[in-house]
Amino acid sequence: MEVMTFKRKPLADCVPELVATARGDQPASLVITGGKLVNVVSGEILEGMSVAVQGGRIAYVGKDVSHTIGEGTKIIDAAGKYIAPGLLDGHCHIESTQLTVTEFARAVLPMGTTGGFFDAHEIANVFGLKGIKLMLDEMRGTPLAAYMQVASCVPSAGAEFETTGASLGPAEIAEAYTWGEDVIALGEVMNFPGVVYGDNKMIGEIQATLRAGRYVDGHFTWPSSDWRLPVYAAAGVTGDHECVTAEDVMERVRLGMYAKMRRGSAWHDVAKTITAHTEHGLDPRRMMLVTDDRSSESLRDEGHMDFVVRHAISQGVKPVIAFQMATINTAERFGVARDIGSITPGSCADIILLDGNLADVHVVTTIAAGVVVAENGIMTAELPSYTYPEEVRSSVHLQQLPVPEDFVIHAPVESGTLATRVIKVIENHVETEERIVQLPVENGVLQVGNGLCKIAVFERHKGTGNKSVGVVEGIGFQEPAAIAMTVAHDSHNVLVIGNDDVLMAKAAAAVAEAQGGVAVITGTGTTLFPLAIAGLMSAEPFEVAAAQSAAISTVLYDAGCTLNYAFMTLSLLALAVIPTLRISDKGLVRISPEEGIQLVSLFC
Amino acid sequence: MEVMTFKRKPLADCVPELVATARGDQPASLVITGGKLVNVVSGEILEGMSVAVQGGRIAYVGKDVSHTIGEGTKIIDAAGKYIAPGLLDGHCHIESTQLTVTEFARAVLPMGTTGGFFDAHEIANVFGLKGIKLMLDEMRGTPLAAYMQVASCVPSAGAEFETTGASLGPAEIAEAYTWGEDVIALGEVMNFPGVVYGDNKMIGEIQATLRAGRYVDGHFTWPSSDWRLPVYAAAGVTGDHECVTAEDVMERVRLGMYAKMRRGSAWHDVAKTITAHTEHGLDPRRMMLVTDDRSSESLRDEGHMDFVVRHAISQGVKPVIAFQMATINTAERFGVARDIGSITPGSCADIILLDGNLADVHVVTTIAAGVVVAENGIMTAELPSYTYPEEVRSSVHLQQLPVPEDFVIHAPVESGTLATRVIKVIENHVETEERIVQLPVENGVLQVGNGLCKIAVFERHKGTGNKSVGVVEGIGFQEPAAIAMTVAHDSHNVLVIGNDDVLMAKAAAAVAEAQGGVAVITGTGTTLFPLAIAGLMSAEPFEVAAAQSAAISTVLYDAGCTLNYAFMTLSLLALAVIPTLRISDKGLVRISPEEGIQLVSLFC
Repeated sequence: MEVMTFKRKPLADCVPELVATARGDQPASLVITGGKLVNVVSGEILEGMSVAVQGGRIAYVGKDVSHTIGEGTKIIDAAGKYIAPGLLDGHCHIESTQLTVTEFARAVLPMGTTGGFFDAHEIANVFGLKGIKLMLDEMRGTPLAAYMQVASCVPSAGAEFETTGASLGPAEIAEAYTWGEDVIALGEVMNFPGVVYGDNKMIGEIQATLRAGRYVDGHFTWPSSDWRLPVYAAAGVTGDHECVTAEDVMERVRLGMYAKMRRGSAWHDVAKTITAHTEHGLDPRRMMLVTDDRSSESLRDEGHMDFVVRHAISQGVKPVIAFQMATINTAERFGVARDIGSITPGSCADIILLDGNLADVHVVTTIAAGVVVAENGIMTAELPSYTYPEEVRSSVHLQQLPVPEDFVIHAPVESGTLATRVIKVIENHVETEERIVQLPVENGVLQVGNGLCKIAVFERHKGTGNKSVGVVEGIGFQEPAAIAMTVAHDSHNVLVIGNDDVLMAKAAAAVAEAQGGVAVITGTGTTLFPLAIAGLMSAEPFEVAAAQSAAISTVLYDAGCTLNYAFMTLSLLALAVIPTLRISDKGLVRISPEEGIQLVSLFC
Repeated sequence: MEVMTFKRKPLADCVPELVATARGDQPASLVITGGKLVNVVSGEILEGMSVAVQGGRIAYVGKDVSHTIGEGTKIIDAAGKYIAPGLLDGHCHIESTQLTVTEFARAVLPMGTTGGFFDAHEIANVFGLKGIKLMLDEMRGTPLAAYMQVASCVPSAGAEFETTGASLGPAEIAEAYTWGEDVIALGEVMNFPGVVYGDNKMIGEIQATLRAGRYVDGHFTWPSSDWRLPVYAAAGVTGDHECVTAEDVMERVRLGMYAKMRRGSAWHDVAKTITAHTEHGLDPRRMMLVTDDRSSESLRDEGHMDFVVRHAISQGVKPVIAFQMATINTAERFGVARDIGSITPGSCADIILLDGNLADVHVVTTIAAGVVVAENGIMTAELPSYTYPEEVRSSVHLQQLPVPEDFVIHAPVESGTLATRVIKVIENHVETEERIVQLPVENGVLQVGNGLCKIAVFERHKGTGNKSVGVVEGIGFQEPAAIAMTVAHDSHNVLVIGNDDVLMAKAAAAVAEAQGGVAVITGTGTTLFPLAIAGLMSAEPFEVAAAQSAAISTVLYDAGCTLNYAFMTLSLLALAVIPTLRISDKGLVRISPEEGIQLVSLFC
């Protein structure tokens, strides 16, 4: 395979050659003939349609493109096939796939995803603006129509509650918008209480975004019936993916937002949210399909946006409307419908061909920026490689390697029992519960057993030596086991969970030595998923990373941790902005709608 | 009445006070309580809804806004009424109303129009960029959310075919975009053959527009089935109002354009075009209602966008969808849906209240930029006055006043007959026909009678003394009569039509002495509609101008010219880009799709 370069030129620069091609004076570079066009602008399926492409854009769409065919024109016969715009992911964290952008592109292009709006929120917590810029640079070399959202909440909670590798504020946000028009939005504003109650940093970031003519994406997890959702909207927030019910969708759309309906690996929101249209009759123009977080295993085993669109159709939405929700609606939300999201003259030639029933969303050919990049599920174009700097590949800076003693919880009494705060995991929910459990103390040491595990965080960005240890319920280990990981939302310190201090120390050491990753240690040995890039992403090809990710799932499951999408669920136990009890390198953090965020002690 | 000032601040500047108001920490300036909200985003009518406003923008929308009411909050009870976003006109030439922008605003605000996208195409032909800038400055002082489109075709045909007061090219277009974000689009690109065949000026103007992040509006009058419509679309044209059939709408939308459906004084396109949705099921999101050209009489007697929306509903479209076509669709087309086009938090407070059935579009209150400006059809706010410079009020520069001898057509023979090209007017159509008629010659002078009229154009911008005389059929005068006017699309020279050389000279002299206007002279005397501003617009209040406009219609009708919207129809006889035979100061101009534009002789 030839290594391809992909460069998307602005429409203005292409107009002369597009018009010349369209009128027949310059041969098209590519034509697709005689297919069933999924016209997402008019909401129709049109038979017998052909498309002519010049370079990276579409020059002509009509029944007959023979006048554009000349020497060197590549011809694809689409008889019996559907011709649809490439699918767009309206909200996605690439880091959640544990893949680099290039490997993410290799994974999703054969599935028909040709563009997306990516929030490099995770690397931002490790490397700040520099991390976002590196991922943006990598994006720009892929065939994807990739747009960057600038992470709004770095750190998520505040420096008093956790240590991150970087922090961003209004000045940094404004700087990111100067990098190019592909830096398009402020990423999900998770600190919605801050917005509602006038926090200067959050209001400043929103103002910087609006002044730059960019878009503000939201993340509002109070109920949609809460009287403060309109307050949030008044700040200029115009999109939100935290919809889990039809009402969540309807209330947001009524307030002028785009409602993003999510089907991630762990977030299964589409079945309920889509009923806002299918049952309640809401105008679907502001409804979008997104993935948010999908693991590499999920990509391999289920798919990407093709899977989400197929799933939406299976819930009863008309196929052409489901396609709109993953193409033109998404492009319109971000003001780029002139460039992507439809098969119309002037648009980027991001085109997929589909076989069989449209409802099956069976992608057989993917064309990105005018180039055939995948056929029958396999990449046919080789993408340029991208190397992250050494600094990014050495991001785990522990003050010292954890040892078993680090996991011992010393009690303020010699013996007896102590009322202890325990983080309780709830399967398929991001929220946790706070439980108060009486735990025994022996020789001044807290005894954690009976199915409970210890959970610890070691600061890994600045070598401060910060660490904290707590207790967690609901992991499910049925044998001595430990997991350690440098993916620990959002500060991405080293998170360790286990029921054996020695194994916990070994697991932590394993990810430290690998300069990032996930390690599970059980009786059967060590299973490692190395994530050398910022401690978040694998340096391996998609296929290898997906297998390693699956191996982690398997060994966790075999050890008794049968939680759905267990790795993602565990990695969120450090997310210090979501109720109720969390752990950071600074200790236990309790979050409630009434009292906000506070550090709390392990013993009550 | 108090003279009001209206200043629309960017959303970014308003965010802190909007959020403070929405959460109840700062009293709203205005609240509207308990109405039926026309939610054009979700496509619903919602009962019992209230709206809180802070300054020029909406702070809160919900069932209960009591927490935003404080000292100084003005309260409007909307019980029993509809609350809808102010109507937007997606393509309009204000000069066609013969009103200044201020008087246009006074006319349309009580009818519920709160914003529009205006193409100051006529003044551009007289004063170029300077004229556009003056109208923009006037717009900025009105309560309207007014956006300017920069005229693309000045002159319409080319300096070899007509003399205009100015010409614009890519450099001037680019300059206009630097004036502000309210200069939003390239106005209707009438030279569509130039675009299709790669004319450098037209391609350059489009490129300048796209590079400035602005929108390109179209004007394609070949049939929508013509293979060249996709070529035009490939140039980046994304809106077009030249739709007269359902197919015209469907073909444009399928190619990614917004289809603008027109109900002007003379263009009655909505009844047919709306069937693209009502009968053919086209997704209506890219369908818009516009006026293009409406006279001040039409405004007075029928209305503005309220009339167009009412008419659309009467054709069977669901009321909320008709409202979408005049609000959110229009705002989305121009990328300003964050500012206007819906009643949502953060949007400009451009709100109308309606009584009775929604289908009647009976506007009883208009709020623009947060201020109540009209109630029960009457302006309640006084607008600041705007004075055009002396130069603009002295725009008629004839080399000398026309005399009867100017209208004598000297023939190349002493007697006999001559095959003469005659312009034939077709009622309710912009196109004309070319007819070849044998006309008698006596003493070397062509005899024009039997219901035919003479038609003449005198150059009025530069005092060149250019003039031409031709023959026209279909005017209908049943008595000696003449009409002269400085409104003569697009070059706006002095156009004179009549059946009596003496009356023609008197009429021409009358408009010259008035420094612009329309004069009709019949047996009953002279009827003058003075248009002192650029020879296009009246310096009088709307009510006076409408009466004067109506007087012209009446006297024309009484003299036998019963053409529908006769003045507009006649003023287009000089439009040198629309088929088939026209007249300019340089002579007869023939336009055909095959041969393009050419000057032709009067005698064959």
